[in-house]
Amino acid sequence: MRVLVFLDGTVGDPEAAHIRVDDLGLLRGDGIFETVLVVDGKPRELDRHLDRLASSAAKLDLPVPDREAWRQAVHTALVNWPAERECAVKLVYTRGPEGSGEPTAFVLAQEIADKVLRQRAAGVAVVTLERGFGPEVAERAPWLLLGAKSLSYAVNMAALREAERRDADDVIFLAADGSVLEGPTSTVVIAQGETLRTPPARTGILPGTTQAGLFDGAESSGWSVKVEPLTMDDLRAADVVLLVSSVRKVTRVVSIDGEALPDASGLHRQLLSIYESLY
Amino acid sequence: MRVLVFLDGTVGDPEAAHIRVDDLGLLRGDGIFETVLVVDGKPRELDRHLDRLASSAAKLDLPVPDREAWRQAVHTALVNWPAERECAVKLVYTRGPEGSGEPTAFVLAQEIADKVLRQRAAGVAVVTLERGFGPEVAERAPWLLLGAKSLSYAVNMAALREAERRDADDVIFLAADGSVLEGPTSTVVIAQGETLRTPPARTGILPGTTQAGLFDGAESSGWSVKVEPLTMDDLRAADVVLLVSSVRKVTRVVSIDGEALPDASGLHRQLLSIYESLY
Repeated sequence: MRVLVFLDGTVGDPEAAHIRVDDLGLLRGDGIFETVLVVDGKPRELDRHLDRLASSAAKLDLPVPDREAWRQAVHTALVNWPAERECAVKLVYTRGPEGSGEPTAFVLAQEIADKVLRQRAAGVAVVTLERGFGPEVAERAPWLLLGAKSLSYAVNMAALREAERRDADDVIFLAADGSVLEGPTSTVVIAQGETLRTPPARTGILPGTTQAGLFDGAESSGWSVKVEPLTMDDLRAADVVLLVSSVRKVTRVVSIDGEALPDASGLHRQLLSIYESLY
Repeated sequence: MRVLVFLDGTVGDPEAAHIRVDDLGLLRGDGIFETVLVVDGKPRELDRHLDRLASSAAKLDLPVPDREAWRQAVHTALVNWPAERECAVKLVYTRGPEGSGEPTAFVLAQEIADKVLRQRAAGVAVVTLERGFGPEVAERAPWLLLGAKSLSYAVNMAALREAERRDADDVIFLAADGSVLEGPTSTVVIAQGETLRTPPARTGILPGTTQAGLFDGAESSGWSVKVEPLTMDDLRAADVVLLVSSVRKVTRVVSIDGEALPDASGLHRQLLSIYESLY
């Protein structure tokens, strides 16, 4: 099941063609997106997603997104979605057909993939892959769009295929100096003692909406939270390593590069319940 | 004017919608392309473009392109294009709608942009921008897709906007060690004495179809050709610096980072005529 709503409020048939072949989102990956989790008919962290959409738009020199129109389009999609079924709502915003100056903008509600549901329950086996950049390049070279959630995700997809080839489910990208960055579609969070840690956005990673929510909740529950560079040694020494994102929520990593991590299912349940209690 | 032909030979209306919103080429920049120059009704370097399309497809784990079908689709587009008008034919090949397993594949013939025609004649002012990678990372990390011509071109487009902000026309990307890579949509070639030089593909750049043609022609005319790493000092010491690509042909660089290069219009004319004599 899928529900498609354009930014002007029109509901479209998701199986039909709506995009021109010269849309720059298609020809150049020139656009941005967000993926919002919806549970019981309620979008989670919608404000943070809209903030990040605006920030990505600025990095790509796209027109400022009309926040209320996006909110309304998400609402319209959810009116057409059965509230008892969880869904992921993609917000997609491209530069539009070449030369038109008119962005393409739509919202697409989709079911959560079975694979994601299984991984939420069972955790993920992860491989580490080099991302090629130094951790300091993002601030110096904004044209690399490292903090923008652009549609140019071919590398992220290729990394996930590489993980599959290595019999793993997901990836943690490492910077050129070996420091920990992020997953192709998730944020890395570790817990050690009473502290949650995640790498800073200035290393060229996407600021995580789910990570931000989780950190808020954890602080309220008495945890310390730190946004600071992480190394592979930090991951190995952690009580639990998590990949967090809208659709996967708070998923634990069960192995890294074939090496099993200690069973942390109790701690994982505790953090997941902190996350769930936010909503 | 535009002519659109799908890989099955169907001619479509380029102003109409043909692509679904869940096409992975759109949602993930997950696909590849080529741009072929057509002069007097004849596509230039079509075999090299089809070779590179196959090589890009392999890097992205896309089904092997049907070479004859692509050739035929290009032919069909050109039957519908007035031979006296130069055009650029894009070959676009995506992973298709999510979960469908059916790639999207089409050919789009378009006019050459006025800007490109002006730059062919007047040359381009170039800025150098950091690309973030070391020159050795491409071979080690194939998931970075550095030698593939993928649809994930948001960074290339952002770099061109950065050039514009700096009152320049184009970009030469530099590796993390300062070595010369390529333009966002072109290959860097320099001439010094009787030798043409260009950086090797193993530095993570796209093997240039136009550069390959030019080198063939230059060798036949008595030039030496070298594929080897280039530094900024090499560019400063060159008799002429060129950006070469299908649509821009052999375009000379008139300044780098605001510093004018010596007038090399005679040498440029000579190399352009070697290139033109190939066809």
